[in-house]
Amino acid sequence: MLCWAHYRFRQRLIAKAEALGLRNSSRPKEILKKAERVANFEQDVWSIFSPLAAQLKAVNLGQGYMNFLPPDFIIESAKGVFSDNANNQYSHPKGRIRLRKALAKAYDPYFHNRNLDPETEIIVTAGANEGIFAIFAGYLDVGDEVILMEPFFDQYISNTTMNGGVPVYVPLRPKFDGNKVISSSEWRLDINELRAKITPKSKIIVLNTPHNPVGKVFSKEELIEIGQVAIKHNLLIISDEVYDRLYFRPDTHERIANLPGLWERTITVGSAGKTFGVTGWRVGWLIGHHHLIETALAAHTRIVFIANSPLQEAIAIGFEKADEHNFFDNQIALYEKKREKMIRPFADLGLPYTIPQGSYFLLVNTSKIRVPENYQVPEIIQKRPKDFKTCYWMAKEIGVVAIPPSEFYSLENQHLGENYARFAFCKTDEMLDEAAGLLKKLENYIID
Amino acid sequence: MLCWAHYRFRQRLIAKAEALGLRNSSRPKEILKKAERVANFEQDVWSIFSPLAAQLKAVNLGQGYMNFLPPDFIIESAKGVFSDNANNQYSHPKGRIRLRKALAKAYDPYFHNRNLDPETEIIVTAGANEGIFAIFAGYLDVGDEVILMEPFFDQYISNTTMNGGVPVYVPLRPKFDGNKVISSSEWRLDINELRAKITPKSKIIVLNTPHNPVGKVFSKEELIEIGQVAIKHNLLIISDEVYDRLYFRPDTHERIANLPGLWERTITVGSAGKTFGVTGWRVGWLIGHHHLIETALAAHTRIVFIANSPLQEAIAIGFEKADEHNFFDNQIALYEKKREKMIRPFADLGLPYTIPQGSYFLLVNTSKIRVPENYQVPEIIQKRPKDFKTCYWMAKEIGVVAIPPSEFYSLENQHLGENYARFAFCKTDEMLDEAAGLLKKLENYIID
Repeated sequence: MLCWAHYRFRQRLIAKAEALGLRNSSRPKEILKKAERVANFEQDVWSIFSPLAAQLKAVNLGQGYMNFLPPDFIIESAKGVFSDNANNQYSHPKGRIRLRKALAKAYDPYFHNRNLDPETEIIVTAGANEGIFAIFAGYLDVGDEVILMEPFFDQYISNTTMNGGVPVYVPLRPKFDGNKVISSSEWRLDINELRAKITPKSKIIVLNTPHNPVGKVFSKEELIEIGQVAIKHNLLIISDEVYDRLYFRPDTHERIANLPGLWERTITVGSAGKTFGVTGWRVGWLIGHHHLIETALAAHTRIVFIANSPLQEAIAIGFEKADEHNFFDNQIALYEKKREKMIRPFADLGLPYTIPQGSYFLLVNTSKIRVPENYQVPEIIQKRPKDFKTCYWMAKEIGVVAIPPSEFYSLENQHLGENYARFAFCKTDEMLDEAAGLLKKLENYIID
Repeated sequence: MLCWAHYRFRQRLIAKAEALGLRNSSRPKEILKKAERVANFEQDVWSIFSPLAAQLKAVNLGQGYMNFLPPDFIIESAKGVFSDNANNQYSHPKGRIRLRKALAKAYDPYFHNRNLDPETEIIVTAGANEGIFAIFAGYLDVGDEVILMEPFFDQYISNTTMNGGVPVYVPLRPKFDGNKVISSSEWRLDINELRAKITPKSKIIVLNTPHNPVGKVFSKEELIEIGQVAIKHNLLIISDEVYDRLYFRPDTHERIANLPGLWERTITVGSAGKTFGVTGWRVGWLIGHHHLIETALAAHTRIVFIANSPLQEAIAIGFEKADEHNFFDNQIALYEKKREKMIRPFADLGLPYTIPQGSYFLLVNTSKIRVPENYQVPEIIQKRPKDFKTCYWMAKEIGVVAIPPSEFYSLENQHLGENYARFAFCKTDEMLDEAAGLLKKLENYIID
């Protein structure tokens, strides 16, 4: 953007600087050193594949946001809040009381009717992401270890390291290497592999159920095993349950915080974006023992002060009205159909996939897809694992964008993700149908 | 909240825990150690005086939020965005392009028409607060020093220390110890005092202009002096200019980023909350050299991912429509009148105050107010400096809540604040009139 007028303007500034005794310093890149905590961030997968989708006008099943409007009663709730000035101004850092009360009511049945206290056991955060960041900020000292299951939601890593923590990885492993159609329940954590990763520095274990990108909903038995490790080694559990309203029958979503002895050491994370289909509203929440919530609140208050007020109020109204619209059941039925639509083309092609029990992602095993050997890809793709190349090729030649899941593995375990692609099905039926049509073209590239 | 059913529920859990081999652990307060970075936070002034105001039904001139609606065109903008689904979903971490373009257009004239690039020189944050936190996260390594002017916006301290930084304080000092009516321009930084605080660990200097709580708008000469120090010692300048649309004629607001050699080392912070009277919307922005913005963006993306989408879009429309409503000029005229209303009762009482050149706070010198000697205050007030007691007494006996500004000083310099009270005048005329009526009662407590 350096035009001639701009150049002359800068030259005048330099002259003025000398006159005033202000040296015109060199570029800040050289002189103002970034903090270590951000110095080594790599380009993330989203900023590669989202622009690619736009550029190619491909069907974008990459990022997990809804390409359809939230229900009318949510939109109307939002439109209604702005005329009351209190909704436009600061809220309590804990969150608006109407929302905390609505959350207590909505979640109480899922926490064995323990009578959740909206004053001490629930806070509202600027999205689930900031909530998780605040927990790390509240509990991690330099060198503390955080156990993460692979594949993971990528923000866990930076949220850990920015707060001085050290990520420690344990993979979920699929039955048959995932080269058959399996249920997401057949992706298992080897509890001994987890136990082997425990050290005196272990501080937090992050659980994600329903799981992104596998779709796994952890069973009670699995949660008990994880809980035993947490108790034995005095770990805090962050239970990221942002997809807790998006699981498929007949599965049910168990909460680790309900297991005996675990309420006291579990913070459950929720998300309005996932619950009501409004990923851009940035309203999340943390639920747990009041000592844990107090610590997260101390950090949250200093990081963002508060979550935005108007959309907190709108989400409160959303919870209040959800039942009269039978919203949550309808939403599950809707997503069950979308899951079917997403699975169908791969079933027809004979490509193996993992049937998700929850969330809105489908992991497809791509090892039978033969990408032409000398296919040219940009350097940024070339230096990444094979799935980046597969997804890039699929975007360009098939017209459907998926996300390469090696991004959700540590360097060491990236190979575990390189035979997969993640498809988000939180999309309109029209878009899923269009994708299905395009995916038929894969037929010519499948080897047996 | 421990009722009988709850108690029995817990007893059952304990029994179940034993059956499952899960020990029921002791309270997390004892076992899960908070991180050092949050362990020593004290109760903040807001959580003392806001509930007090509510409890006493006093006129609350404490926290700086508007108790009146934003202009109609802002409310209408907000109501209009929800029907377009893109406004409900994730935006680019940089912020919505419509807002970045609107900001570039709105701010360009204030940055010498340098042709601000919305792709590289502007990002949108989850409020100005998160923007400032992200800058600290992006630049501070453990032990790096941040120079803060007292009195300060209290979040600067925790935002610094949570990111490993060490606050270093330099006070603004008022002429005549502030015991006469003075302009906020007569609160001065002693540049030699600033220079004396520089060490090899100095990394960032935070400037706040217009200043909260003093109301000072730094002059060009003052900014040049500060800029010289920044260049000489290779400091990053965070210029917190959230009140940049709220200064009073004939003063003008100078921007340090415009001084020669300083664009390259200054990040300017802005706020939709302050600009449009919507403190709860949590939309802020950072403007600066692309290398600086890139670093802040790297941190911001990992802290909150994005600012909320719908209100970003509404603020974009707000900027687009502001001129046709002559909004910014009208707003200044409105606040000039409110400043007059706020000043009047103290002028009548003969209490000294600082006439603010900008922001919406009035600092009143309370040293002539005689609070009855044995006046009883709660312990939390008792152990704080004198201004806490004065403000507590004023809330209870006069019926008007102000904020004790010693909260905005380091421990060492708290005494510099203890003869003041901060009154926020971003309130309806009715409320300011009511306060004026009540403040007359101070007459009986003034000594000469």
